[in-house]
Parts: sequence; structure tokens; C-alpha cells
Amino acid sequence: MTAHLTLSLDAMGGDKAPEMVIRGAELALERFPDLRFLIFGRDEELNALIVPGSKLANAAEIRHAPDVVGSDAKAAVALRGGRASSMRLAIDSVRSGDASGVVSAGNTGALMAMAKFVLHTLPGIDRPAIASFFPTQRGESVMLDLGANIECDAENLVQFAVMGDIFARAVLGLERPTIGLLNVGVEGQKGHEHIRRAAAMLRESQTPLDFRGFVEGDDIGAGTVDVIVTDGFTGNVALKTAEGTAKLIGLFLRESFKSSLLSRIGYLLSQPAIRRLRSRVDPRRYNGAMFLGLNGIVVKSHGGTDAFGFANAIGVAVDLCRQGFIERIKGEIQKLTLEAENQKAAAI
Amino acid sequence: MTAHLTLSLDAMGGDKAPEMVIRGAELALERFPDLRFLIFGRDEELNALIVPGSKLANAAEIRHAPDVVGSDAKAAVALRGGRASSMRLAIDSVRSGDASGVVSAGNTGALMAMAKFVLHTLPGIDRPAIASFFPTQRGESVMLDLGANIECDAENLVQFAVMGDIFARAVLGLERPTIGLLNVGVEGQKGHEHIRRAAAMLRESQTPLDFRGFVEGDDIGAGTVDVIVTDGFTGNVALKTAEGTAKLIGLFLRESFKSSLLSRIGYLLSQPAIRRLRSRVDPRRYNGAMFLGLNGIVVKSHGGTDAFGFANAIGVAVDLCRQGFIERIKGEIQKLTLEAENQKAAAI
Repeated sequence: MTAHLTLSLDAMGGDKAPEMVIRGAELALERFPDLRFLIFGRDEELNALIVPGSKLANAAEIRHAPDVVGSDAKAAVALRGGRASSMRLAIDSVRSGDASGVVSAGNTGALMAMAKFVLHTLPGIDRPAIASFFPTQRGESVMLDLGANIECDAENLVQFAVMGDIFARAVLGLERPTIGLLNVGVEGQKGHEHIRRAAAMLRESQTPLDFRGFVEGDDIGAGTVDVIVTDGFTGNVALKTAEGTAKLIGLFLRESFKSSLLSRIGYLLSQPAIRRLRSRVDPRRYNGAMFLGLNGIVVKSHGGTDAFGFANAIGVAVDLCRQGFIERIKGEIQKLTLEAENQKAAAI
Repeated sequence: MTAHLTLSLDAMGGDKAPEMVIRGAELALERFPDLRFLIFGRDEELNALIVPGSKLANAAEIRHAPDVVGSDAKAAVALRGGRASSMRLAIDSVRSGDASGVVSAGNTGALMAMAKFVLHTLPGIDRPAIASFFPTQRGESVMLDLGANIECDAENLVQFAVMGDIFARAVLGLERPTIGLLNVGVEGQKGHEHIRRAAAMLRESQTPLDFRGFVEGDDIGAGTVDVIVTDGFTGNVALKTAEGTAKLIGLFLRESFKSSLLSRIGYLLSQPAIRRLRSRVDPRRYNGAMFLGLNGIVVKSHGGTDAFGFANAIGVAVDLCRQGFIERIKGEIQKLTLEAENQKAAAI
């Protein structure tokens, strides 16, 4: 007997909400028939979108939320004024235990602020981080932090490494992920002081992390390690630079194929190949960034995604819940904290 | 009558040196027939590579340098022990006025250390920066710093903006380049404090810079601005992430085309289109990073490049020399310094 897993959805977040969210839930239900949803939003709008008697209608409960957090609302304002918003009520339902996790395509800053306020960070974690996975030459890798923490110290980076390790095990199914710290060279003396200190801490740590030292920007696409650890500023720039480069090459590719008649014919014949390429770099496949370090599963979908992308973000939440992600992080962080205390005791 | 321009070449730097350097000089001479070279390296090796009576033989003078700076030598060690190296003697020749600029594909750290020691920074410039240009959706853009300065303050970033502006005018031929500061969001309150302070300084400055505020990682490929200003850590990660992404998509493209017989035929017909694409993202075309802020033209070629790439790096040095780059930077920095002094005086 499989226990039903219940996830809360913020139906009002995202450019094409709430329809995109409802269609995404339907798609996810095809992949995970045992899934149950609590769907938060304006009940009239939601009821109009869900066909009575459909699979989704049977698997979902609509919970009315009168307010919506705007996509450009400041986090502090949303936190104070958004207590009756779909986003906030969806997070509250994780705290109360009604749901095992929440998925939202709404305002990232507001979601992080509310999630921290309602769910709190795990014991031993100073700051939550945003993690996501993406394609590489060797398969898929995880990178964190992607923008939650602009300034990070060595201790933050070490905690990110531990959380990234468990995330890669849970979502990518890796047994012992390799971990690298993003830097401007692989030699020990390069980079910011806090990065070098984090590397020393990871090398000396008794945790079972497979730490491989420093990696550089081109190692992200190469897939040199499974988990890339960096501060939120660098991670955000790297992620968006990669997205921008992929778009640029896509444009160049289309323009090149239009440059001659022969190329146009070649283009037509190559359609399956080009579709295959497009699918491999489709950002919707890599949709679903996880807020790591909170006492609850919170997955952020890209705001501009469609139902297919949103269903993938739901899939990330399912993986994390089923793998007992929060308990595993708690266990590893406890080990790390004990270790630090023992080292302090030994040093006295 | 065109005055001859003389450039010094470090013939011993780069993976395929010295042959790559000599062939690169020959290619550059075809584009710039008036160019003259001082070629530094082991004279026996160089004499064996240059055909007597050839165009290059007539345009070049070989200057013997017994030593070579190793590609993995520490900068400080190279600076102390490399006084008779091809790299050092080539830089010395710019200082003495024998040459207008120097091009080297050797060790970046050693080249920067030697160039700073021998040529000094320009008055008003605290730290030199590394700048390069690259393809975008709108043409080409310049980014700096790409790795010379891991830690930067607001004043450094403002100086980079001024130098990047003049670099874009000289090398890309733009009349009034647009300038952006790389950040994790376009809103004013985002990012590191020194970046926000640099933005305020650039907005209030009386210099004729066309400052457009913050840009994000995906704006690099989009070509949103002509000059992207950032610290050396972020710039290096962004550049290498873009390179890694381009490689990844190239690999996916080749694999996709091999996935079916029809795609293979399409691939054959599309050869001109694919060649055109490859040429547009060919890193050799964008070879030649400039060390900005020194009292002399120093261009760093990628160590792994070939003769075609090295010739392009020589081309960057030619553009900078012909545009009176150093004098223009001196003038703009002087204005900026005067302005800062006036503001201080007004504040008293």
C-alpha cells in the first residue's frame, strides 16, 4: 500500500496562473497517480478551471485564498501584508502538516521570506539556499546557491555542500555525488579567502562528502562534478549567463540554417535532430528550484513556465518528499555540528 | 604616408609556441602590411621558422631571449627570475619605446605581474583590468574585469567603466558605447554594496559615459549593453560559464545530428550553415584580451590558440595603438580625477 502524498500548490503565482498551475497539476497526476493536492487561490477562478468528476477534481481540494502576491512585490511588504495570499496559505499548510511540501511559481523573494518566516531554517543551518539542476556533458548536475544569499562566508558554503550532496542523492539518484567549489582557478591559492577556507574545511571534514576541490565556470557545462557550490551572487550570474549563451547559440543556429536554400532543406531533414537538441536544453525540463535548509519542502517554479514545466517542478517536490529529504539533511547537519563541537573541545 | 607600427611578440608563450606565433605574425602581416615586429625568443629556434627573404623576414627583427616563462610558473617567481625571458624582454621593449605594444600567449599571471612592474599603471588607475570582447545577439560586447582583480571596490568598478568605454570605442568602433554593471537583478537595492555604490557614482558622474544601470547574466549574450563591468571573480566565472555552455550545446548538436539517418543527411546538406554557426562562435575570432590601465599596450592571447587566433590578438593590439588608446584613457581618467577633487572641494 502506498501512502498518499499531499502537496500544496500556490495556484496564483506565475505569468500564466492559475490555468498553467491547474494544467500542470493534471500532468503531474498522470505521472504520480497517488498524488493529492491542496490548491490555494481564488475559489471561483479555480472551480471554473477544474472539471467536476475529473481525476484532478478527485485528487484535489481547493482552499480559498482571497489575496495574491504580486510578481514585483517587495519581500518585506508581501510578508507583512500577504497573510491571506495563496502563497502564504500554501506555505502555512506545510507548517500545519496538512501537506508535505509546497510548489509555487510566484515571486521568489516573497516566497523565500514567507517560507523562512513560517517554516524556519533547520537546526544548524544559518541560511537557506536555492538549488537547481541542469544539463551537462555527463548528465545532470546541481548548483547552489542560485541567489538567496548574496554574501556568504565559509561556514555557509560548507552547509551548502552538505545540502547539495543530499539534494543530488534525492533528485538525481546518485549514490555518492562529487562536489566542487566554484572558483577562478583550480590551484589552492586562487579566489576569495572565504572560498579557500571553505575548501580547507571540506577537505578536513569527517562527513562522507566526496569533495573534489575547486572547479571553474566551464566545469559547469562539462559536468566535472555533480554538485557545484557557490555564493548566491556568483551562482545567479553563472546560471543566467548559461541561459543567455544557450539562447544566443539557438539564435545563431536558426540564422545559419536560413542562410542558404541548401541549408533550409538540410534544416527540414534535420527536424528530428533539432527537436532532440531543443528537448535536451529545454529549460522546462530543468524547472523546479528547491529552497534548501528550511524545515519543509518548498519548490520554486520559474514564473514564465507552462503546464509541462510546472509539472516537472511538482515532480521535484515529489522526489524530495519520497526520499525523506528533510530528515536526511537534519541527520547530516547534526553530524557536522557535532564534529565542529568535538573539534572545538579537542582544541581546548 | 603611413607611419610603421612596431609590435613586440613573445614568441615562446602558448601551447604551440614558437611556431604558432611566427605563423600568426605572418597572417597578421597580410592584414596589416605596414606592421613591423620585434620577435623575442631563442634565436636559433626562431631563425629556423622564418624563411629568409620572406615578407615576415623583412618586417621582423629577432631579439634573442635565452629564458622562457613556464605556463605554470608563479607570477612572483617569474617576476624575480624571468629577467632574461622572452616575455620580460618583449615588455621591456614597450617601456623603452622600441615597440608600441606587446602580444603574448604566455602565462597570464606572470604577464600581468611583469607588465605592472615594468610599465606601471596609469595615473589615477588603482588596478589594471583584463578586458575582452565576445559575440552577442546584437553584435559584439566588451566585458571587464575577466580575472585580474578578485576583490574590487566601487572606485575600481568606476575606473573599469571608463576604461571599458574607451576600449569599446577603439576596438569595436562604437561612438558612444552603453555601459552596464553586472548584478543579480536590475532593481537598485540588489547586489553587493560596492556594486550599488559604483552605480551611484556612475549615475552622478559628469563623464560622458552612457551608463544604463544594472544588467544580469543573460544580458551578456543578449547584448543589452556594449560594455559589461564586473569584478575579476564574477567576470572570470561568467566568461568560462559561457564557454562551457557553448561547448555543451555544440556537443548536443553533433549528437543530435548523429541520432538518425535522416538527420545525418540533413547534417551533410547543412554543412555551410553549421560552418557559419561555428565561425560565429569561434573563440579564435574573439582572441586577444587587453590589459587595461597600464602605461602601454599589452594584449594577452589565449595560450591554446593557433596562428589564426594569434593573428587576431595582434589585430587587437594594432587597433589599440592606432586609436591612441593610452592617451585617450589618460585624458578620461584625468577628467574623472579632477571631478572627484572638485566634489571634495565643494563638500568642504
